[in-house]
Amino acid sequence: MRRAPKALLFDVQGTAVDFHSTVTAEARRISAGRCPEVDWADFVHRWRAAYSAALADTRGDRWTSVHSVYRDSLDRLLQQDGITTFTGPEREELALAWQKLVPWPDTVEGLTRLKTRFTVATLSNADVSAVVNLSKRAGLPWDAVFTAEMAGAFKPDPVTYRMAATYLGLPPAEIMMVACHKYDVRAAGALGMQTAFVARPLEFGPGGAPDVSFEDEFDVNATDFLDLAHQLGC
Amino acid sequence: MRRAPKALLFDVQGTAVDFHSTVTAEARRISAGRCPEVDWADFVHRWRAAYSAALADTRGDRWTSVHSVYRDSLDRLLQQDGITTFTGPEREELALAWQKLVPWPDTVEGLTRLKTRFTVATLSNADVSAVVNLSKRAGLPWDAVFTAEMAGAFKPDPVTYRMAATYLGLPPAEIMMVACHKYDVRAAGALGMQTAFVARPLEFGPGGAPDVSFEDEFDVNATDFLDLAHQLGC
Repeated sequence: MRRAPKALLFDVQGTAVDFHSTVTAEARRISAGRCPEVDWADFVHRWRAAYSAALADTRGDRWTSVHSVYRDSLDRLLQQDGITTFTGPEREELALAWQKLVPWPDTVEGLTRLKTRFTVATLSNADVSAVVNLSKRAGLPWDAVFTAEMAGAFKPDPVTYRMAATYLGLPPAEIMMVACHKYDVRAAGALGMQTAFVARPLEFGPGGAPDVSFEDEFDVNATDFLDLAHQLGC
Repeated sequence: MRRAPKALLFDVQGTAVDFHSTVTAEARRISAGRCPEVDWADFVHRWRAAYSAALADTRGDRWTSVHSVYRDSLDRLLQQDGITTFTGPEREELALAWQKLVPWPDTVEGLTRLKTRFTVATLSNADVSAVVNLSKRAGLPWDAVFTAEMAGAFKPDPVTYRMAATYLGLPPAEIMMVACHKYDVRAAGALGMQTAFVARPLEFGPGGAPDVSFEDEFDVNATDFLDLAHQLGC
């Protein structure tokens, strides 16, 4: 490994928190048995994919809040699936589930250990308010919250990573990007940041099949945040 | 008082941390008895005044890091006073004292209590990295760090306060600005934010005479962060 970094930047949705369980449970709770034929796990999987596609489309355009991206994607998906049972306030409540995501079991302890040695900050595509709200609920002990909203561009746009480096006052080589999405880790690595891949095999639920294979190209490959802390000497 | 706010924004230098003691002690330590005639407490007072004047001058211009403002003001002040004893690295070390400021005795406990009920975030004119670094050293438990650097304008420019409101995702009326500087509290109040003045009689050291009188115009007047927490029901 290279010289130890001074700061770690963390992706949030998927890497630090479990969106699949949270949002699927919220959808089941809010639907309250009204549409028993719907596979909510699959619905959430397609909702997340629609969000990712929408973010890729907005790159370079005017800024859109991620909450509105989730909200619009939800409306389209419900219409597409012919699900008419949700009222406006229920749709809003469901879209807000993305601000209530629960951490993976290792997240809080791992971050707490890493924080003793490194500056730990987010670098998320979610809105600042969403990351602040979910971090407060979950007790995620960030030293700072940085998100794409502060750069006006979504990851993997280089300006997003550069914004975080500027605010940290550190050269890229002294920063390590931590994520369970390889495109995110790779984009940071291309700018000279150190790279840590964390496997999250349950990102899309028990039936999902995310890419969790370790790669030699990354400085660190970890099974979770406790393993990451251990490998970084915490 | 009006309806309880959801988030509190805190000024940092002076309000949450004691710059006078910290920077004066660093100046004494670094000078190591080489210039016994210098009144370092007075020097730091004038250094802070030079910083404030420089910030007012840069309003509307291109962004300058606050560290460089402190560094340049230091050079000018040393030259003006005929103090030639400091090397370049010593001047840099002295300017970095502003990133090591220690909290007032009530700050950590007060913030910890306030954090149980409110989102607590900074709104400082200092650089993001300076606030992150000093908060980490001091254990200040912010939910988020916002600074003028993220708005490209210093307080009391309205865009700075509006940036924080946007990132919090809250209307101004649900945010309370907390500061020991009345111009700062007033600027937030003019935008519809709730206002809390905290008296810091030792801001400029034992010989200083900051304006610590309570004012009816503010929603809350507090003697320190514990008093603020008490008045806000924490």
